[in-house]
Amino acid sequence: MNLVDQGAFRWHTLWLERANRSNYRKDGQILNKQAFVSLLTPPGRGAVATVVVGGQDCVACVAERFDAACGRRLDELVIDRIFFGRWRSREGPGEELVVCRRSDWVEIHGHGGRAAPASIIQDLVEDGCREMAWPDLLWQTSADPFAAEACIALTQARTQRTAAILMDQVRGALREQWEKVIRALESGDIPTASASMEELTQQSCIGLHLIQPYRVVLCGPPNVGKSTLINALLGYQRSIVYDQPGTTRDVLTTHTALEGWPIELSDTAGLRDQASGVEAEGVERSRQQREKADLVLLIYDASQSSPEVILTEGSGQQHLTIYNKMDQRSSGLDGEGIFTNALTGDGVGDLVKAIVETLVPLPPRAGQAVPFTHRQVKALKASQVQLFSDQPQTAAAILRAAARVGPVVSS
Amino acid sequence: MNLVDQGAFRWHTLWLERANRSNYRKDGQILNKQAFVSLLTPPGRGAVATVVVGGQDCVACVAERFDAACGRRLDELVIDRIFFGRWRSREGPGEELVVCRRSDWVEIHGHGGRAAPASIIQDLVEDGCREMAWPDLLWQTSADPFAAEACIALTQARTQRTAAILMDQVRGALREQWEKVIRALESGDIPTASASMEELTQQSCIGLHLIQPYRVVLCGPPNVGKSTLINALLGYQRSIVYDQPGTTRDVLTTHTALEGWPIELSDTAGLRDQASGVEAEGVERSRQQREKADLVLLIYDASQSSPEVILTEGSGQQHLTIYNKMDQRSSGLDGEGIFTNALTGDGVGDLVKAIVETLVPLPPRAGQAVPFTHRQVKALKASQVQLFSDQPQTAAAILRAAARVGPVVSS
Repeated sequence: MNLVDQGAFRWHTLWLERANRSNYRKDGQILNKQAFVSLLTPPGRGAVATVVVGGQDCVACVAERFDAACGRRLDELVIDRIFFGRWRSREGPGEELVVCRRSDWVEIHGHGGRAAPASIIQDLVEDGCREMAWPDLLWQTSADPFAAEACIALTQARTQRTAAILMDQVRGALREQWEKVIRALESGDIPTASASMEELTQQSCIGLHLIQPYRVVLCGPPNVGKSTLINALLGYQRSIVYDQPGTTRDVLTTHTALEGWPIELSDTAGLRDQASGVEAEGVERSRQQREKADLVLLIYDASQSSPEVILTEGSGQQHLTIYNKMDQRSSGLDGEGIFTNALTGDGVGDLVKAIVETLVPLPPRAGQAVPFTHRQVKALKASQVQLFSDQPQTAAAILRAAARVGPVVSS
Repeated sequence: MNLVDQGAFRWHTLWLERANRSNYRKDGQILNKQAFVSLLTPPGRGAVATVVVGGQDCVACVAERFDAACGRRLDELVIDRIFFGRWRSREGPGEELVVCRRSDWVEIHGHGGRAAPASIIQDLVEDGCREMAWPDLLWQTSADPFAAEACIALTQARTQRTAAILMDQVRGALREQWEKVIRALESGDIPTASASMEELTQQSCIGLHLIQPYRVVLCGPPNVGKSTLINALLGYQRSIVYDQPGTTRDVLTTHTALEGWPIELSDTAGLRDQASGVEAEGVERSRQQREKADLVLLIYDASQSSPEVILTEGSGQQHLTIYNKMDQRSSGLDGEGIFTNALTGDGVGDLVKAIVETLVPLPPRAGQAVPFTHRQVKALKASQVQLFSDQPQTAAAILRAAARVGPVVSS
């Protein structure tokens, strides 16, 4: 029975059942007899930590350390049921914990933090288990690389909107569409294949920003209100943003989310041609930052009838023109753009709407396939190149290779 | 049956069973009918996240959202057994997850990260559950405040040695000793009470440093090799130190562990009396840092026959005298202290031994009671004051109050 093909991706079951099957090659040769141990919860300050032990003899391996309160051995315990007991550590009695024996692996739920689970893992490593980071375990053992990648990406999602899109991919949206393209290519239905691939490519522009925020750079001379405008944008829908502890931030860069899309806002020095010395260096850094931007906001002072031109011509980047200080609007000003008053918040809603519509013109429908890693996008592009060269079978082969089972656990 | 008194502190069982009982006052009045939801795993990048739902009607509350793959309702499912299913979210089908129904609460195991569990919690909050941070839940609902405090502290332990000491307190070491003191006070056995309290007070010096590292400040003029010595100390047993992501660190301050004890090492500017201006400011900061230190290392240059005196007399702080550059030792030098060569590592082992023996002269035995929070130490001191004033009953009452059940869940 292939659980993946049932459409119900029961992820940690599947992944670990796969982990054990993948210890065997198709010719029956055992690739890896060693049990492995992996910490599934983040190593921070939480109440519980979950450690998983899989691979050959994992049940026997944990049984040596675990004294169940009911007095029975782990291998006699009912599968999928939880049991209390005590961990037998090298250094005397270990902690009280909860163990759940699964069909081919064991879950250990103990105290949270770093040192407590590390102590259990160390005991198991001394007993011969191999420690694996959970993304490696997930990636190496998953039957569906897209689902594995989606599970990993999901843990990095900062908003519920991006998490929901990734959840669709965990459920198989991308895999289904991918397979549809392969079938179309193989059966010679080039129009369908081509249209589906084009749709995937369009969505990948969004997919690559589910984890990496969109970069929005504010440009403009001093005193047009750039900082106030950044604060107004940060204040907008502030509650839906997750903090990112541990991230070093440039003082000029802040993170937020607009309508559920993660955004990095950067302030820059004004751009002037005649700058020299220290100022020129700052201008050069601004230019570099602007070139990496997904969207440039050109901020003008609405109180001036002919504001200084900011953007060097020919940069060809996506940009929006904003006239701030709209309350002091000069009668001589006839520019077109978005009028804001960053201090009162007037026009900031329109600005947010314009930013989102520019960055995400076609948000994915619920359940739509969205490629979300560079690996997927690279395969898609390589396949499209083959299709344009009239090589549909090669195009299909590239997609098929990218959708294949991840590398098996190697010793 | 009181599980605590069995000595086997089955923490998450007990804590949550308590959480439900504590919704009722002794007079039967319901304090809090509301179900609560709490994230038990740290909100970082991990494979799984565990959410717990407790309180009145929690099973019914989760049952509204959870469609078990087996087709039965959550309240019909076997207790302590895990079941797969799908979460019914307000915004369409939610994620696949694993649910374990316990006697009076429900554990939900889903995808890790921040946004995925936040989505489940948000659904439950919209259904009327109250969100609680896990330390609040643990503290407010635990039958044994010492065990709750130990569980919380355990998640912050940086070394396995400090974790093992906290694990002893989770298992009840402190509670047992505390109750022994209370019994001795109440029965008039003042010598036993006094001796036991003294032992607890001694151990509290260590206990308060299980989470907060010992502060070790290096003092000495430039060029005696302070930075090299810090690097030599950091290199010593480096592997047993856990990184602390998210902590802002002064560039002059680093963290390490020596023989399992967490240590914060600080470098300071040299201390000279005639300094002025900017240098005087640096000297003032150094002095402040040194005053907060648990141990000051006075570093001299062994190549000089009469090195500059560093420490101002009368500071009365614990200190060790170190002569660095021992390979270039001056024949005229007759000082007493630890001789090191920070470049080669010679003598660094002796220095580590001396630091540890000074900071932790009496490491706790396995299973020994160690007070580890300021709350506990404050109660202990207040009790000792009463005992010295010949008020053993008041002394006992103070200890008893500190060992009482934490505040119940209030609405």
